[in-house]
Amino acid sequence: MLYAAIDLGGTKIAGALGTSDGDLLAEQTIPTEAAAGPDQVIGRIAALVRSLGGAPAALGIGVPGLVDRATGQTLFLPNLATQWRGVPLAARLTAELGIPVRILNDARAATLGEFRFGHSAPNMLLYTLGTGVGGGVVVDGRLRLGPFGAAGELGHQTMEPNGELCNCGSRGCLETLVSGPALARAGTALLGQPVTVAEMAELPECRPLFTRAGEYLGIAVANMISALHPDLVVFGGGLSTLGDLLLGPVPPTVAARVRMFSPAAVRLERSALGEKAGVLGALALASLDLT
Amino acid sequence: MLYAAIDLGGTKIAGALGTSDGDLLAEQTIPTEAAAGPDQVIGRIAALVRSLGGAPAALGIGVPGLVDRATGQTLFLPNLATQWRGVPLAARLTAELGIPVRILNDARAATLGEFRFGHSAPNMLLYTLGTGVGGGVVVDGRLRLGPFGAAGELGHQTMEPNGELCNCGSRGCLETLVSGPALARAGTALLGQPVTVAEMAELPECRPLFTRAGEYLGIAVANMISALHPDLVVFGGGLSTLGDLLLGPVPPTVAARVRMFSPAAVRLERSALGEKAGVLGALALASLDLT
Repeated sequence: MLYAAIDLGGTKIAGALGTSDGDLLAEQTIPTEAAAGPDQVIGRIAALVRSLGGAPAALGIGVPGLVDRATGQTLFLPNLATQWRGVPLAARLTAELGIPVRILNDARAATLGEFRFGHSAPNMLLYTLGTGVGGGVVVDGRLRLGPFGAAGELGHQTMEPNGELCNCGSRGCLETLVSGPALARAGTALLGQPVTVAEMAELPECRPLFTRAGEYLGIAVANMISALHPDLVVFGGGLSTLGDLLLGPVPPTVAARVRMFSPAAVRLERSALGEKAGVLGALALASLDLT
Repeated sequence: MLYAAIDLGGTKIAGALGTSDGDLLAEQTIPTEAAAGPDQVIGRIAALVRSLGGAPAALGIGVPGLVDRATGQTLFLPNLATQWRGVPLAARLTAELGIPVRILNDARAATLGEFRFGHSAPNMLLYTLGTGVGGGVVVDGRLRLGPFGAAGELGHQTMEPNGELCNCGSRGCLETLVSGPALARAGTALLGQPVTVAEMAELPECRPLFTRAGEYLGIAVANMISALHPDLVVFGGGLSTLGDLLLGPVPPTVAARVRMFSPAAVRLERSALGEKAGVLGALALASLDLT
């Protein structure tokens, strides 16, 4: 059986056709052109799925925001131009393509993908470290969803009660400390001129900024380990490719902060799926009945 | 079927005989006399269970610390004089009483009790607010345990990375901000003389200290709601009887901090079991097969 997978992002749409075992038979990426609005973008998604060929049994789609899983409506996609409030995305794509369409937040979809095709354990957490910080929580082999598929917001954990204003409206969230924009802001403040995270990674004087971000990430991870004692914590998203520069402080911070029991058996890993995490997550979603 | 229940504390041992529906037929409380060491305390527990009468099918016992659930050994009970490292508590009590003995951390046992006999939901958190801050997490109707029954350490969440040293060895845990000793320390510092939490509750000038503690509690709760989107959060333990003085700031703080989805449907409740939470938790443990 073949399935179609879409990872809808603010700047690009990645599509794939694959099997329930995670084998990708076709892949394509196109620009989102989000400014054109939902109607245009939905048309582009449908055309992309058709162009991948095959006869997919279902489409899975990861979206950057909140969806109502019961109705398949998008509730709030903050990184798309028009925010997509109340867009009946599943119904529209089913009408276009004639197949079931399953929608989920992209970080939760990535968690499904990692659980199915990458590093996997019955109790695991995934952090997606990128423009935002997303996450997903698997307990007893099931992805935690909650009413809106919104459980798993591991980036919106208050780390500094009086910290910076977060995109979510709260203050001092992990996302204000460890995301790409947060790191670039810190680098720009340090250097007195605009700098990208990629440039910062080459500058020795920026190293302490990555260390500080990694320590905050470690504290957030430690809190979740103390609460849930998972078997595995996985780090994905673009920033995870920074490797030890960002993630190096995580293990010692976890060891220093989780003291009620030994966290030594909790595996800490970088995503095994790399940049295909998005479409593989959507593929896992397409082939899985989450209800 | 009748079950015996023991809540082992640093200063007293509460025992009860009851049904799997939570009806208590006999109750008794005796001093722990922890300084006498495990042998003496185990003898006192066995005598207490016998004195309750009936013919209990099993004994459940909540202990203030870490146990190895596989072997029934205590690993670390920090509040008992000799810390009880490696005491085969289940085996010793089974030998004395001739019935199965089930052991669990007392906050996790209290969570079981609340889930079975008090406020209940398939996905819920319980905070025990007292000398320490303990907790428990129920997901899909099952108490989260982890290898040592140690999942659910909701009091050992870093709230202030450079905060006060915690009993657990980390810094700035919720327990350093919201426990009885933490409040008393803050009151003593404010007033310049020793004061108890009960005295502080009568002093208007101490009100901001309770508000601050309640706000930290609210942040910790918000973090867990963002991560797990539970249906219900329950507050038990001695400090929960302070009511709005301590817990009043929790709902507005949760509303301010959980912004990725609406937390309005998450119920926040004080424990329905009050001071019987300990023995009712042990009773739930005795009557339940957790494996």
